Amino acid sequence: MARTSSLSGFPEWLPDGRVVEQHVLDSLRRTFELHGFAGIETRAVEPLSQLLRKGETSKEVYLLQRLQEESDDAGEVDAERRLGLHFDLTVPFARYVLEHAGQLAFPFKRYQIQKVWRGERPQDGRFREFTQADIDVVGADTLPFHYEVELPLVMAEALTALPIPPVRVSVNNRKVAQGFYEAIGLEDVEGTLRTIDKLDKVGPEGVARLLMDEVGATPEQAAHALELADISGTDASVADQVLALGARSPLLDEGLGELVALLEAAHELSPGTVVADLKIARGLDYYTGSVYETTLLGHEDLGSICSGGRYDSLASDGRRTYPGVGLSIGVSRLLARLLRDDLATATRPVPSAVLVAVTDEEHRRGSDRVARRLRARGIPTDVAPVAAKYGKQIRYADRRGIPFVWFPGADGDEVKDIRSGEQVPADAGTWAPPENDLLPRVVRADPAAAR
Amino acid sequence: MARTSSLSGFPEWLPDGRVVEQHVLDSLRRTFELHGFAGIETRAVEPLSQLLRKGETSKEVYLLQRLQEESDDAGEVDAERRLGLHFDLTVPFARYVLEHAGQLAFPFKRYQIQKVWRGERPQDGRFREFTQADIDVVGADTLPFHYEVELPLVMAEALTALPIPPVRVSVNNRKVAQGFYEAIGLEDVEGTLRTIDKLDKVGPEGVARLLMDEVGATPEQAAHALELADISGTDASVADQVLALGARSPLLDEGLGELVALLEAAHELSPGTVVADLKIARGLDYYTGSVYETTLLGHEDLGSICSGGRYDSLASDGRRTYPGVGLSIGVSRLLARLLRDDLATATRPVPSAVLVAVTDEEHRRGSDRVARRLRARGIPTDVAPVAAKYGKQIRYADRRGIPFVWFPGADGDEVKDIRSGEQVPADAGTWAPPENDLLPRVVRADPAAAR
Repeated sequence: MARTSSLSGFPEWLPDGRVVEQHVLDSLRRTFELHGFAGIETRAVEPLSQLLRKGETSKEVYLLQRLQEESDDAGEVDAERRLGLHFDLTVPFARYVLEHAGQLAFPFKRYQIQKVWRGERPQDGRFREFTQADIDVVGADTLPFHYEVELPLVMAEALTALPIPPVRVSVNNRKVAQGFYEAIGLEDVEGTLRTIDKLDKVGPEGVARLLMDEVGATPEQAAHALELADISGTDASVADQVLALGARSPLLDEGLGELVALLEAAHELSPGTVVADLKIARGLDYYTGSVYETTLLGHEDLGSICSGGRYDSLASDGRRTYPGVGLSIGVSRLLARLLRDDLATATRPVPSAVLVAVTDEEHRRGSDRVARRLRARGIPTDVAPVAAKYGKQIRYADRRGIPFVWFPGADGDEVKDIRSGEQVPADAGTWAPPENDLLPRVVRADPAAAR
Repeated sequence: MARTSSLSGFPEWLPDGRVVEQHVLDSLRRTFELHGFAGIETRAVEPLSQLLRKGETSKEVYLLQRLQEESDDAGEVDAERRLGLHFDLTVPFARYVLEHAGQLAFPFKRYQIQKVWRGERPQDGRFREFTQADIDVVGADTLPFHYEVELPLVMAEALTALPIPPVRVSVNNRKVAQGFYEAIGLEDVEGTLRTIDKLDKVGPEGVARLLMDEVGATPEQAAHALELADISGTDASVADQVLALGARSPLLDEGLGELVALLEAAHELSPGTVVADLKIARGLDYYTGSVYETTLLGHEDLGSICSGGRYDSLASDGRRTYPGVGLSIGVSRLLARLLRDDLATATRPVPSAVLVAVTDEEHRRGSDRVARRLRARGIPTDVAPVAAKYGKQIRYADRRGIPFVWFPGADGDEVKDIRSGEQVPADAGTWAPPENDLLPRVVRADPAAAR
């Protein structure tokens, strides 16, 4: 168990868990950079006025208060002056884009991996501090549709490179839903979406009743909306199924065209990974085109581990509008599951591949010199803390998973692989551990062994 | 100018500045790992009761308050229940060690690179959010002296690997100061240290007066304390100078032995980098052995960019005591100077080495396929956002510093180095950019050119 937490909602990892987390973060960064996304970080705080603009999550904002602040500041909330911790990376990114628009080149592709904070009630068992990894591309005034195809595929690639089970990216398109609802005469598009979003909770009959009671649908309209929500698939047949329901509109056609384009590009890259699922309604109230959710196969109870979509207006300063497409991975949630279920483990909790033994304290400098020569060639190396008996020094290495112990000798050095017990003469200027042992690695659990 | 900030004290970098920052962080991590330090992160918050234990800085704590919290919570401060943002990485590390002692192997060597927050008054022009990079080694009950030699040398190596001017590590030892003061009859060791710490501000005469007025020193004792503070050097002659002042005590001898051992080891590794400076008093009230400060040559006005020392009790749970040695780099302060003075700059603000042009939107998939083949071989690649005229696509690359533009062609592809204008036939399965162009690099300013 690499996870630990003495403060509910604020996870911390032991060193072996951190090796897994660092591997995940490095791997995400590598994929994002291969695709040309520039890394940025934003400050952890935003003015409360910014944070309050996103309704739902605003309730969970952590406000900052200086300990020495006059007490009359504490009571009233001055939204312009007061600062809160950001609860996602989208609000800060939108602010960053507006603030630095003159110095950025558009379309601007950025990734951002940072902690965010949400003051959820601890009894919900949710994280109050967690890491998100976001990619977004944002244009000035316009942003071509093809980014709606590319970004979920970058995320699918990024997730596939991680030591995790396979993922499924489920997609929908606001234009399909809106075009369809309007074509069948359901004018309250947002109300309908909010109700469809309750399918998992209340079932189709419950949704039909709510559509009639609260959104003003006729029984036929409710039935049609449910038929649309029932459609899923991985290819152009999805569009055929929708059209077979009989409704038509230019917006619906446009949405279906986009959906099919996404499915076809995804099929070329990674067949079966991207699935159109027309019951997805979450986020369709603020997304304006494609919308994405991602589940970890076999861990559907986690909910979506990577979500996002297209905004026609990620940000706007009155003069210009900045449309965007982006997705966000909930890294901490994913990692907590990896560590809880031992889906991925570190081969050792420390970087060192070698421990240089110390014969006696008078010769410590000699051991330091060996270590320096190994490090100069990129081999992470530790030196024994005390010139104890060799058995004890070997146990020091063993407890940390350090595979090799180096014995300096007057007549030449020797190195021992403490796993096999094999000990051979070695020269610190030329010897190297096997590639596999150089750095701690993260290995996937063998699914067969887990059964 | 890669720096920007719309909120005083909360620095943010443009993408080119972030390339420099990421390079610095990667480089530090690499050095720390080569020396066997395990990376950890702690949560950003600690209970206020923990944070209030470190007097001076406690005033600057940012308290957290949930927006929806009952208003009567806001007024009174319940130090056990209330949470604040950490203001350094030492307090959280001490808590982490106590909390997880049963699962850690001691001596435990860890590095930790994280943001910290201090609610300083904005008019001071100080950072309220900044990154620190700490290394510490902590033992259970005992910790050998040799770590006091090794840790500052690890930091010197880490700093030397950065694209910054040379550094000087100044060292002192609490045992030397205390042993000396006690030997000359100055019993108020801490008061004397606090006064000596004012040397730069009030000068030797001012310090002599304060020692007499406030610490109860005789004129002779004050003169002796100033003579000690005047001593500096890079080798064993420092001890000779101290002994020449006539005072002797076992504690003084022990301190001088430690100081000389540190200087001699440092001399072997990097002559001239480590200097004993016996006027250093900062931190000697809580450090119990060696103490370190680091200045960037030519930028002494920055103050110490990396400080630390030995604690006999970094943490204690009543049963066990955990002595430690550690140092902390103020990364943001260092970085702000690098960027302000253009001491280090990124060769480009984006990861991409190649932009694949798009002939027309119908052939975008073909360009995507080229990009995929290049990425599969580790070459960061972007694809043109729009199938505009080639001249415009080349300008897209040029504005981002992307050195190569790839032109897919029915009869074979070509790649153009847009700096030289040279264009050659190329195959996406074999072509690679020169090693120097593969990733953005960080280059030091040429000091000669700056003159």
